[in-house]
Order: sequence, then C-alpha cells, then structure tokens
Amino acid sequence: MFSVTVRDHMMIAHSFRGEVFGPAQRLHGATYVVDATFRRRALDSDGIVVDIGRAAEALREVLGELSYRNLDDEPSFSGVNTTTEALAQVVADRLADRIHAGDLGADAADLETIAVTLHESHIAWASYERSP
Amino acid sequence: MFSVTVRDHMMIAHSFRGEVFGPAQRLHGATYVVDATFRRRALDSDGIVVDIGRAAEALREVLGELSYRNLDDEPSFSGVNTTTEALAQVVADRLADRIHAGDLGADAADLETIAVTLHESHIAWASYERSP
Amino acid sequence: MFSVTVRDHMMIAHSFRGEVFGPAQRLHGATYVVDATFRRRALDSDGIVVDIGRAAEALREVLGELSYRNLDDEPSFSGVNTTTEALAQVVADRLADRIHAGDLGADAADLETIAVTLHESHIAWASYERSP
Amino acid sequence: MFSVTVRDHMMIAHSFRGEVFGPAQRLHGATYVVDATFRRRALDSDGIVVDIGRAAEALREVLGELSYRNLDDEPSFSGVNTTTEALAQVVADRLADRIHAGDLGADAADLETIAVTLHESHIAWASYERSP
Amino acid sequence: MFSVTVRDHMMIAHSFRGEVFGPAQRLHGATYVVDATFRRRALDSDGIVVDIGRAAEALREVLGELSYRNLDDEPSFSGVNTTTEALAQVVADRLADRIHAGDLGADAADLETIAVTLHESHIAWASYERSP
Amino acid sequence: MFSVTVRDHMMIAHSFRGEVFGPAQRLHGATYVVDATFRRRALDSDGIVVDIGRAAEALREVLGELSYRNLDDEPSFSGVNTTTEALAQVVADRLADRIHAGDLGADAADLETIAVTLHESHIAWASYERSP
Repeated sequence: MFSVTVRDHMMIAHSFRGEVFGPAQRLHGATYVVDATFRRRALDSDGIVVDIGRAAEALREVLGELSYRNLDDEPSFSGVNTTTEALAQVVADRLADRIHAGDLGADAADLETIAVTLHESHIAWASYERSP
Repeated sequence: MFSVTVRDHMMIAHSFRGEVFGPAQRLHGATYVVDATFRRRALDSDGIVVDIGRAAEALREVLGELSYRNLDDEPSFSGVNTTTEALAQVVADRLADRIHAGDLGADAADLETIAVTLHESHIAWASYERSP
Repeated sequence: MFSVTVRDHMMIAHSFRGEVFGPAQRLHGATYVVDATFRRRALDSDGIVVDIGRAAEALREVLGELSYRNLDDEPSFSGVNTTTEALAQVVADRLADRIHAGDLGADAADLETIAVTLHESHIAWASYERSP
Repeated sequence: MFSVTVRDHMMIAHSFRGEVFGPAQRLHGATYVVDATFRRRALDSDGIVVDIGRAAEALREVLGELSYRNLDDEPSFSGVNTTTEALAQVVADRLADRIHAGDLGADAADLETIAVTLHESHIAWASYERSP
Repeated sequence: MFSVTVRDHMMIAHSFRGEVFGPAQRLHGATYVVDATFRRRALDSDGIVVDIGRAAEALREVLGELSYRNLDDEPSFSGVNTTTEALAQVVADRLADRIHAGDLGADAADLETIAVTLHESHIAWASYERSP
Repeated sequence: MFSVTVRDHMMIAHSFRGEVFGPAQRLHGATYVVDATFRRRALDSDGIVVDIGRAAEALREVLGELSYRNLDDEPSFSGVNTTTEALAQVVADRLADRIHAGDLGADAADLETIAVTLHESHIAWASYERSP
C-alpha cells in the first residue's frame, strides 16, 4: 500500500459545551496543523498516488473555508462540538467531496482511504480515516 | 475510524542482557517521549474519542510509576530486557488496566485499540498496539 | 553563556485591527507552543541555570492566565493587537515579574536575559528577549 | 503488534517526465529523511522486534546505493519517475532483499510488514508498506 | 529585541568541487527547509515586527528563483560551491535586496538583522545573519 | 556571521545530589539529542564554515566517551551534578579540545564560538556557548 501526505494549517476560534471540557467551555482558539494522507494500492502511470499539487490545493481550499473564523458562528456546526476529532472528520469528508467532484483527477477514484490528522499542540492530536 | 493521541515522557536507567545489545549491556539510560493513541469507531455524545484530560492523566500516572528509576531494580522487570518495544507494551498494558478500572470513563470500554509509541531518540522509536 | 529552555502551550481566541492583517481581522484563534529560555553566565552551586521545575511552573502559571480565553475581552489588552510578537513580550514580562517576586529562587536574580518564543504554526513563530 | 523504526536520510538529484510535475520536470534534487518500520506480532527471546543496529546498518547501506547520485543516470531507474512514493517502494524492496539474505538475522523472517516513509520536506511525505 | 520567523522550502540539484566534499562532489540534490528571521528593537504601530504575509511572499519569491533547478547551471553561481552556508547567505542577501526595494514596507528599513537558516536534513543545518 | 550545526545523541544514566532535584535524585537516565553549532565570520576557500564530516565525527567521538555509561561512576564527574546544562559545557569543552588538537582542520582555529544544545525531552533543553 502506498500513501502520500500533505501538511497545511488553519487557525480558528470556538468553544465547547459539556462539563468534560472544563475551561475549554470558554471561547478560545486553536492552530490546527493538518496532515491529509491519501492511500492507494498501486501507483498511476506517472508513478504517483495522487497529484500532490492538486492534493495540496484541495486541502488549502478546505481549510480556507474554516480558517480565520469563529466556528461557533458557522451554521454548519450548529449544535456540534467542533472538537479536534470532529474537525478531522469534517476535513476528511470535505476532501472526499472534492475527490468525487474530480478535483484530484480521475485516478483519485481509486483511492483506498483518506486520513486526516489535526495537531492541536505539541502534546495532542486526533485523526479520522475513511474510504473516499 | 477516529483516534486521539496524547504525548508525555519518562526518564529511566536500565541495562540489557544479550550480546546483540553491544555497549547497551552497560548501565545507561533513556528519555522516552511517549505517545498514547486511543482509537474508536464513533465519537461519543460530546463529540470525543476519550476525555483527553483523563487520558493525559492516566498516561502521566503510568509513566510516573516508571520514571526516575533504575528499571534493573524493579521487581516487575526481573529477568526481562526493558527494550523500547517491551516498554511500549508495558505502558499499553497498564493503560488498558486503567481503562478496565474505569479511569477513562464508561465510554472508554468501546475503544478499538490502544497504541503506544516510545521515541528513544530522534532516529529510533518503537510501538505496540493492542485491543483494550 | 548557559541557557535552559522549557516548553508549554496556550490556546486563545482573538482578532486584529488593521488592514495589514487581512482575514485575521476576523475573530479566530491560535495554539501557541511557548518556549521560555533563561540565560546565565555561570551555573549555581547545584550545577543549574535555574530550577527547571520552578521555571516550568512559572511558565504554566503565566500561560494559565491567558489560555482558554478570548483576548479581545481581556481589559489588559484593550486597544492592543495581541500579535504573536506582542504576546511573546507579555509572557516574557510576566515571567520577569515572577522572577522579581522570587518565584524562581534567589539565584534567578543573576539571569542575563529571558527569551520567549511563541510558535503559531509549523511555518511561523516570533520571539522577544529582555533582561529580567 | 510491535514495531521498531529507524531514521536515516539520502540526498539525490532527479527530474520527472509528465506535465503533472510542472517545474519538477527540470533537473532538481531532494533530501529524503527516511523512516524504515519493521512490524512483528511477538518479540524474540531478547525482547526485540529486530536487531536495531543491524536494521540501521541495512537502511544505511540501501540509502548509500542511492545517495549523492543523479537518479536520472541510474540504469535501474531507466524510464521510471523516481517520485517520493516510487522511491519508498525501492527502499522497502531492497530492505526486503536484505532480510531474505539474512542481513537482519534469522528471526527477521517472522516480520509481518516493512513500511518505508520518505519525507521530502516539512509539508510532504510518502510511504510504502509490504510484507517482507 | 523582537523577531519573527517564516518557514518555506526549496529543492535543488548541485555538486561541489573540492576533496573535502567526498561523494558530494557528484551531482546530487537537497531539500532545504528555510527559516527567515527578521529582528527589530520595537514593534510598529500595528504591533508587528514585519508584515508576515509580505515576509512569507518575499521568501517564497527568493526561493522560487532557486528551486527546481540545477544550481551548477546557474550563471550567478559560476565558480562557487553552493554549500548550505553559502546558500543561506544568498537567500539573506536577496531578502535584503527586497527590503531595500520596499517589498516588506517602509517600516522594514528599521530591521536590525535578517537571519536565514537552511536545514539540509534532520541532522544538519546552516545559518547566515546580517544587517539588512 | 555564519554557522553550521550537526546533530547526534547519547544515552546515559546518572543521579543528582540536592533537594532541588526531587525524584531526579534517584538513579535514572536520559537520551540527550545534541546539537553542536560552529560559528565563523567568513567562509573558507571551499565555501564552508567547517568540514561537516569532521565536525560530525568529532561530535560522535565526544559523545561516544559518555554514552551507554552511568555518569555517577565516571571519575571525571566525581562530585559534580551532571545536569543538562553542565553536560552541554562538557561536550563544548571537549569539542574545543579537539579543535585545538587540529581534528577539525587548520581553518577551525578561526571559529568565533561553539554552542552545544542538549535536548533532554520534547519540553526541555539546555545550551552552553563559548569561544573555542
């Protein structure tokens, strides 16, 4: 199995609901350093898993829809705790949508899985992996 | 599949028995930067894999039982080479014990796997993964 | 010259005023991974620059006053852009206050400089260095 | 499942054929920081996955055959795009050859998989995983 | 003293002349992860050392003139060993040219120094620092 | 000013005397990831600060004298707390001895300073800088 990973980041504000979150129930924020991994069983005729330029561009666009925003004000997250693990799924799902729309090329239909890791600090990170 | 990882560290002395270890048969030591990863198929009602505060606390307690010690003097490691890979299993097993004892909350019973990685230097690390 | 550095982090929300900031004029947030460096010409009688436990505790307390907050609502930052470089100064100044108050011990009066670096992402960071 | 990883690097020149590569069709180069991971279900009688000294030596030798070279001039890569993902496979295959030749010891025959990751920059990397 | 650093990278081919370079006398290549640091005694009225967007853009343009090239073929490096330390100076000098041309804004004239670090691998890097 | 840095590591056991060290008064150990930086005002005729191969070899030899040992048993450290900052000085002093002995070549006599940083974990490190 092959994989290719590209890294980018986003900076957001948000707050959590639920006693489990302690002081993170207050409005605060995070930089998420985001790794998007694309896995495929075989390389294409160019010798690649996916066009890394297109993959980086797709990730940049997905993160651009979230970055420099207060996620508490985003209708799409109404009633949802935008935890690191939940946001990893959001980013992976939106990358899958772009793959289905052809943004990563026709060959990207062959991808086995997409995995997204969000690093919230030097001591904590979360991931979500799905088929495209 | 979702995962959450927390990082901490421990500093120990030990020696190894066996010619394969060369100069590491002498008493020496290591800093292990330890990553504990918890995987689960779905998020709970708070939108999390596991309470990250409790997970970090459980890891700190497990490492606190090992850190600032000469592992050669610990009865629990009598006759055992405390290699990086063996210690990864020790940490994972002790985290599993804490999950069974309820330290990470009732929902932690649903975890698919626990994976523990010990970084012994910038050029070597070892992991162990198990079901809880 | 000797130095010792300890690392911790904080997670905050804020916004900036000024066209130079582009989309960062919107309410957003950041994780700052914070390195506090203490420099001294000679080691004390214990062979250390500063008690690393006390240094880490002082840094944790300074960051605890800022973390999990919307800095736009903090009276102490009224009319101030809480940029990465400005916050590096805030953290350094508050560490200096604690040194003057004796929190790092009597020997800390000998420190040459304190330097604070705030990493806002994997591709950008800022520092401030001052005498204590 | 256990794993052990060793890290080394190589520095090569090459060019790519295909419009997808844009400016990378010109002769350029890369440092690849290379992680080789060896996985096994159980530890051997010494408490290890593999002799880490031998594993590091095998990786150094495999990378030594590639490093400080223009891969465009290597007959073994004639007609092949030496992309990061393709080179990850080359390194993994050559490590597997050495395992079969006994370079990592008799116990290495039990390895479940070898995984090789090549980091081409701080924002992109690729992997290949196979059974030995 | 304040500083702000931005990180980017370039990928080049080159060779060295001189026995001291051993196998690096052959045509090979490198990824350089490049950190450009701008230092100033005081923050401007926006609370910044330099417009980080403009700084990142200036660095990207300087690296774009070098990346995806065989430096042995560049007339500007004729007769010069493009070592990591020599390239750090090239990048710093070209950033200084852009500061003088006003690309980083009028306030950038106040900068104390520019420092450029090129990481050639996980175990080696070089820097050059100058006044602008 | 130019600099070149090489990274290596050592693994040692030791204990500290003094209440300030808390549990680190017990026999324990550490991995130190060690960065040795060599600074010079100008490059030599090859375009380098120092022969990086020789610098790496000198660092490897200095660390080889310390690694895989219990520093409490080394006569040269009798009555000395081998703290991270004290060991940074030991490594820098021994590198200076090798420079004086000519191990880094005749040009190394021109070096302005040597700086040594020992990383004891992901959250703490210490440095010592001296003229050679």
